[in-house]
Amino acid sequence: MKKLVKLLPIIIIGISLSAYSADKAIAPSHSITYPTGWQNWATIAASHRTDNSTLRVILGNDIAVKAARSGNTNPWPDGAVIGKVVWKDTQLSDWQAATAPGNFVHAEFMFKDTKKYSESYGWGWARWVGLEQKPFEKGMNVCISCHTPVKKRDWVFTEPASLPK
Amino acid sequence: MKKLVKLLPIIIIGISLSAYSADKAIAPSHSITYPTGWQNWATIAASHRTDNSTLRVILGNDIAVKAARSGNTNPWPDGAVIGKVVWKDTQLSDWQAATAPGNFVHAEFMFKDTKKYSESYGWGWARWVGLEQKPFEKGMNVCISCHTPVKKRDWVFTEPASLPK
Repeated sequence: MKKLVKLLPIIIIGISLSAYSADKAIAPSHSITYPTGWQNWATIAASHRTDNSTLRVILGNDIAVKAARSGNTNPWPDGAVIGKVVWKDTQLSDWQAATAPGNFVHAEFMFKDTKKYSESYGWGWARWVGLEQKPFEKGMNVCISCHTPVKKRDWVFTEPASLPK
Repeated sequence: MKKLVKLLPIIIIGISLSAYSADKAIAPSHSITYPTGWQNWATIAASHRTDNSTLRVILGNDIAVKAARSGNTNPWPDGAVIGKVVWKDTQLSDWQAATAPGNFVHAEFMFKDTKKYSESYGWGWARWVGLEQKPFEKGMNVCISCHTPVKKRDWVFTEPASLPK
């Protein structure tokens, strides 16, 4: 028991370090570092896609949220990161006319940096799949080709939602 | 012109103060103080209600988000504030199969305080309507009656969305 008490600080540090390294272990997608903490970013918009039965919230880092709420989105400013969090849709248990988030699908991000990403229209495109956040590595062109219909809107589908100031 | 230049600091201070007081001037709903800053709260869930054509995001203050993400929601802890932000739904301009937020409808909140709100099932119920955030004053019973189907879920419809840790 005494031995355990002596070992306790070491055990605690060990657990903390392993939790830390687990958090850091999410590999880059398209060489882009994982944007830790996006789960607490503020909302820019939401959407329900009936063509693939998914529900989405669109979040942003501080630069993106400030740009969204001041209408400064064509182009979006350098440093803006927009995140799209995607779930399969499902029916809410206690209100059948409400569609709600079901299984988590992926979180995908656009990182605005005009210089760094000059070859991909000013954006870094990345995605992490599933609750384990496995990096998507099929190439930014997969993302870009889908976003082509909105190239005149700085490649962004999202229209920031109207909010009280 | 010189007079205007001299007056300019006073004018600027005047405008700043009036903007400040406008922000502070949002009146209480059901005697509950307006929860300033909810626009930057983190996401708990989202929903699309096809019975009244609205799209919603469900946000929370820090206590609510922590509870939601640790499954500590029946009951929700004292201090939790859950916010539901509601827009009429509309079609996204550049992707017709996507439903997106249209006109802002209202933001409504549940404030958990077992003692303070013992007569309304442990929750303070409030709503602010429109972009001008006009307080809803028709009585908490209007809110409670709609939430009766979920009284066994601590009166909350929302099922927190699954998110990577």
